[in-house]
Amino acid sequence: MPDAAPSLRAALAQVASEVEAALDDLLPPLEGAEARLMEAMRYSTLGGGKRLRAFLAVESAALFGVDRRCAARVGAAIEMLHAYSLIHDDLPAMDNDDLRRGKPSCHRAFDEATAILAGDALQTRAFEVLAEPDTHSNPDARCELVLALAQAAGMRGMVGGQMIDMVAEGQTLAANEITRLQALKTGRLIQFSAEAGAILGRAGPVQRHLLAAYGRDLGAAFQIADDVLDAVGTADEIGKTAGKDAASGKATLLAALGLERAREQARALAAQAASCLDSFGPKADLLRALAAYVVDRRH
Amino acid sequence: MPDAAPSLRAALAQVASEVEAALDDLLPPLEGAEARLMEAMRYSTLGGGKRLRAFLAVESAALFGVDRRCAARVGAAIEMLHAYSLIHDDLPAMDNDDLRRGKPSCHRAFDEATAILAGDALQTRAFEVLAEPDTHSNPDARCELVLALAQAAGMRGMVGGQMIDMVAEGQTLAANEITRLQALKTGRLIQFSAEAGAILGRAGPVQRHLLAAYGRDLGAAFQIADDVLDAVGTADEIGKTAGKDAASGKATLLAALGLERAREQARALAAQAASCLDSFGPKADLLRALAAYVVDRRH
Repeated sequence: MPDAAPSLRAALAQVASEVEAALDDLLPPLEGAEARLMEAMRYSTLGGGKRLRAFLAVESAALFGVDRRCAARVGAAIEMLHAYSLIHDDLPAMDNDDLRRGKPSCHRAFDEATAILAGDALQTRAFEVLAEPDTHSNPDARCELVLALAQAAGMRGMVGGQMIDMVAEGQTLAANEITRLQALKTGRLIQFSAEAGAILGRAGPVQRHLLAAYGRDLGAAFQIADDVLDAVGTADEIGKTAGKDAASGKATLLAALGLERAREQARALAAQAASCLDSFGPKADLLRALAAYVVDRRH
Repeated sequence: MPDAAPSLRAALAQVASEVEAALDDLLPPLEGAEARLMEAMRYSTLGGGKRLRAFLAVESAALFGVDRRCAARVGAAIEMLHAYSLIHDDLPAMDNDDLRRGKPSCHRAFDEATAILAGDALQTRAFEVLAEPDTHSNPDARCELVLALAQAAGMRGMVGGQMIDMVAEGQTLAANEITRLQALKTGRLIQFSAEAGAILGRAGPVQRHLLAAYGRDLGAAFQIADDVLDAVGTADEIGKTAGKDAASGKATLLAALGLERAREQARALAAQAASCLDSFGPKADLLRALAAYVVDRRH
């Protein structure tokens, strides 16, 4: 399997570096007894991850010529939201995972109370950043960002999906139920990431819809590929405990479809994602390359 | 000690009823496996509490003739944020409290994972409601509400205060450190509640500042009065485990100052809060009555 094409690899590294700088800037150390809170927030947010979600926001915004620093702020806000969800997912009462991105998860590196609070504060900060005037000069755009992120992250999105996942643990779900679970748990935030560029760019409803559809299909492809990596990868390659899904009885499409059919479905979804970009022409080439990359990556 | 004056009592009941209706409307049952998530969110948000924070938002908005349904939406969002903080505070890794408002706390009535997720989703929903066009026709006002709530609730506000509280457990704090802790942990959200009315009413900076100062002093008075109730009340009167603060070594001003000096300070703060309302004339009478009430209430 090929790794990312050179131009995509460079673009991913570039966005990761811009978003890292934005995160560092947006999460400055705190003084006093609450310093530990920010240490945990920074520990779980900075210095790791592919920044796939931020990349989607920055590159979809680039289609509309949006100021890159504004797009990086939105990318940073999305990464904060994502980091909060990982911190809470890893808690003993949830997935009880000791490893995240190859290092101790937040509650292992700090303690459970600090991890709960760090996740809480990262969610708050994500919405704060989106509402700040530096993110966009138009308050309508900022409100739409807050609204769309909340819809993606909340009870009808990511947290709803996480709840289904907890309820379903140990049960056998049908393929369509797993698809819905994953669309909520991970898909909605990835969809928002792509849509955020259209919101920042004040795109019309058709272009916004196309980018949302691209993000939705890409997210579904990504999730299946992630499950495949979990099943066949090692802890060293993927930076978390390998085989964890199967061991914990987590519902995955891989288990429902088998390895080969799951891989086929991921590729079909990635192709469908890319087709949403047709009307954007060559300037969407990086987003196209990303669709190919997510299903063929090795880590 | 007198109970609330009849007109204040009627106004509190009226706002509580309006906000209860708004919450019921804004948190409709979910279908599917995630139904349990919304049950927990509704369990912890509906049907209880004095709705002090919502009252502040609605009555401060009334000073500017704001549409009452818009103000009730903001009051409901604040109550969701408050409920999320209580759910997470009660968790075993935090205060480990089994009782809340006289009934089992969320993780006791459901389970720990559901409680974590219900808190998470309530925070998200609070920001979502503020950003929705139904809350205010002007997107600038909606962005300011999101921003000010995030500042009050996040790492430099409520969650920061909660972190200090966790770090300080078992230690003896000086009175000024306790004051700062409580200003962050409970004061900032109460301050925002009063300020929210000014934001909704598109008030000028002086009026907004006066309402924020009123809320800040009222919040400080309220917190001391709450500590006094915890020390002298019974579980039946206050709806949570009595004497819990002292038993857990929680830092309170009461412990630092003693009962009589703490009561004096609460009254002085309430008087100072009321003085911020001078320029609003008789239409601020309910907010004045509230300042007197919070330090003399019995539950």
